[in-house]
Amino acid sequence: MNDPRDLQPAARSAEPGQEIERLIQLLARLPGLGPRSARRAALHLVKRKDALMVPLAGAMAEAVEAVGICSTCGNIDTSDPCHVCSDPRRDHSMIIVVEDVSDLWALERANDAGGSMNALYHVLGGTLSPLDGIGPDDLSIPALVDRAQDDAVSEIIIAVNATVEGQTTAHFITDRLEGADVAISRLAHGVPVGGELDYLDEGTLSAALRARTKL
Amino acid sequence: MNDPRDLQPAARSAEPGQEIERLIQLLARLPGLGPRSARRAALHLVKRKDALMVPLAGAMAEAVEAVGICSTCGNIDTSDPCHVCSDPRRDHSMIIVVEDVSDLWALERANDAGGSMNALYHVLGGTLSPLDGIGPDDLSIPALVDRAQDDAVSEIIIAVNATVEGQTTAHFITDRLEGADVAISRLAHGVPVGGELDYLDEGTLSAALRARTKL
Repeated sequence: MNDPRDLQPAARSAEPGQEIERLIQLLARLPGLGPRSARRAALHLVKRKDALMVPLAGAMAEAVEAVGICSTCGNIDTSDPCHVCSDPRRDHSMIIVVEDVSDLWALERANDAGGSMNALYHVLGGTLSPLDGIGPDDLSIPALVDRAQDDAVSEIIIAVNATVEGQTTAHFITDRLEGADVAISRLAHGVPVGGELDYLDEGTLSAALRARTKL
Repeated sequence: MNDPRDLQPAARSAEPGQEIERLIQLLARLPGLGPRSARRAALHLVKRKDALMVPLAGAMAEAVEAVGICSTCGNIDTSDPCHVCSDPRRDHSMIIVVEDVSDLWALERANDAGGSMNALYHVLGGTLSPLDGIGPDDLSIPALVDRAQDDAVSEIIIAVNATVEGQTTAHFITDRLEGADVAISRLAHGVPVGGELDYLDEGTLSAALRARTKL
């Protein structure tokens, strides 16, 4: 057996080429992928060039061209105003206020399932967080106040997350909307459909008890 | 409040446009990303068009062009033969047999850290698995037997995973290499560096005991 110490070290590591290294680094910046899983994903892509990497690169290039942010509500879509804002069959008197586009998509999935409001949306772009330096001007709150002045709008449904930051933001928005002639509501708290009481926290359970409905 | 039931359902959901939908579907095929996290990743990409999506699409397009599989060892690289196989400072008398390119990369990281063999590699492309219909011909075993006939090769180090499939494959390879004039070895079993005995399984502990080294 040759002693490996007799050999000079290799000029560079066998870890991919520069191209793959760069691919790994960029993939690692996706949420849900760390450095390890980014390497795995890159390998997966390289092994499935024609079946996956080519179409994915194409889909991204297309999305870069086609997709933008709706100047009215902050939704991400291929048209501006987005197809929700420009849909005449929507109820334009109600605006559902969400933290993020992902929340809008989640509510629209409920809408597709027949359970939602078919209303308009307003994406805040986050929650108030003084510690992170995120104040009212960093969120799309002034634009919401403007929209609320519109006579056509009669109700604002605040659908922020039930976290401390979300609730702080909800209070702030309620204050700022005081002058506007709109009803303000928030999502109900309660037991998730399909949820087991045993696994729920006390806060949810007592909220569900307080908001009990007659059968 | 308007009754939403008075309104006709929206023509299509607000969930992205077709472009984003396709991006989500393709991202969901990456290992480590499910449908939910793929949606999150797509949103992340769309929000960071210039900082992330454009470079990532570019990096993929580049990798599609540049990267291929080494016809000698099965490594993934920008040249064929890959830079490991074509590196004259490598020890060309030793071939380390691995299941997958990711294992090759892992061993090369050990190499960079100064602890590996600076040898050549051979990527099998998996392990024998009769239940999944993976037989010897589906792996790069004939090519390995060919390489072992080369007079320059004196040792084959079998570095497959310490799983049942890996060990079965190792036995099979050992049988097939019987005629060749090479030493065959496998990775040592033992306590991982930094590992705590308390958390190790009995198999590893008794292997480490049997293979104890004198101080």
